[in-house]
Amino acid sequence: MDKELMKQVAGQEAVKYIKDGMTVGLGTGSTVKYLLDALGKRVAKEGLRIIGVPTSNRSAKRARDLGIDVKSIDDVDHIDLTVDGADQIDENFQGIKGGGVAHLREKIVAINSKKNIWIVDKTKMAKNLGSFPLPLEVTPYGSTHLFKRLDDMGYQPQFRTNAKGGHVLTHADNYIIDLKMHSIEHPHELEQILNNLTGIVEHGLFLDMVNTVIVGNENGSKTYQAR
Amino acid sequence: MDKELMKQVAGQEAVKYIKDGMTVGLGTGSTVKYLLDALGKRVAKEGLRIIGVPTSNRSAKRARDLGIDVKSIDDVDHIDLTVDGADQIDENFQGIKGGGVAHLREKIVAINSKKNIWIVDKTKMAKNLGSFPLPLEVTPYGSTHLFKRLDDMGYQPQFRTNAKGGHVLTHADNYIIDLKMHSIEHPHELEQILNNLTGIVEHGLFLDMVNTVIVGNENGSKTYQAR
Repeated sequence: MDKELMKQVAGQEAVKYIKDGMTVGLGTGSTVKYLLDALGKRVAKEGLRIIGVPTSNRSAKRARDLGIDVKSIDDVDHIDLTVDGADQIDENFQGIKGGGVAHLREKIVAINSKKNIWIVDKTKMAKNLGSFPLPLEVTPYGSTHLFKRLDDMGYQPQFRTNAKGGHVLTHADNYIIDLKMHSIEHPHELEQILNNLTGIVEHGLFLDMVNTVIVGNENGSKTYQAR
Repeated sequence: MDKELMKQVAGQEAVKYIKDGMTVGLGTGSTVKYLLDALGKRVAKEGLRIIGVPTSNRSAKRARDLGIDVKSIDDVDHIDLTVDGADQIDENFQGIKGGGVAHLREKIVAINSKKNIWIVDKTKMAKNLGSFPLPLEVTPYGSTHLFKRLDDMGYQPQFRTNAKGGHVLTHADNYIIDLKMHSIEHPHELEQILNNLTGIVEHGLFLDMVNTVIVGNENGSKTYQAR
């Protein structure tokens, strides 16, 4: 079974958790695409009524195209469930997100959701976090000094650039610095250090945040309850 | 002596700390205006050569008009000294800034400066912080939920609005939430709580950051060494 099929089965499994009347956070990325496809089918076939709260313009457009009602997070008073992908998940179900530049919005939606489900193909699972570079959304103003500081701390920072060599910009016109740390042994300690640095708008560590992880593999999907 | 004169003497005293060849962070606000006036005179009369690193477009324009060389923070490799105002300073020389919407840039310049001087009139000095509302620069996305959270925590948040009732926007097009806490007994504990909340780009607590405080009063100015 190839990676796309693994993503698809994870997305199709997650859609079963969505009930009529729910307000649902809709993540971003290649695995969430399959969730949206499956969700669009349920809306069309079963007349499922949900409100979708997308974390990116791309997900908003795709959801609308599939006939899903879409609202901004600031126009709903709660979110029942969010389904999102992840770039890496460790043995304790801690995650890294931000490969797709949307981790600020994704984290804001996640912390305001009663329940969070992550859907991934099995290649995203790892013993420790860190082989996937950790994304930081940073304020452009002063970012060269922040970069130097992160470099001095040994975090191996790298500005994310586009094909033309310019800075990749987030929704909020911030830059992304990826930390190529290889292995993150103590994610909570790192989180505290990053929270206390000025100029980091949000980092891609998502700790103690997910309730259910659905992993697509060769035989279908496997569901883990994270806590 | 009225308040404007107190601000003026503080600004005039601070300019003495600026030496030929220095790279100088230039704050924002009504007291810094007097510093810039005094600095402009030294540039014109003595031929003082400095590089100014302004924290706002307003300060950048004013500095240029006064003949001061101006560079962006990302075009200098260090800052020797920053002179800035403050909205409130407590007995331990901890401060609140952000009344003028520029505290994100001001904090980035401050943490990258070898030395920081604050200049204020005596009405800014207080036993405890908190009678001046604490400004938070926040991401617009999800800000209604952050507001509710801060309200539940008892911090008495209020969105800062303009004359037309719309949100005041920062340089980075973020919103400002002011916390009307009245008294902040434990600023370090509060800082840690705010650092750990998602959606706050930067708060206006400036702790353990200033080296020298110059206070304008009825008799002239008084200089305190903060540590």
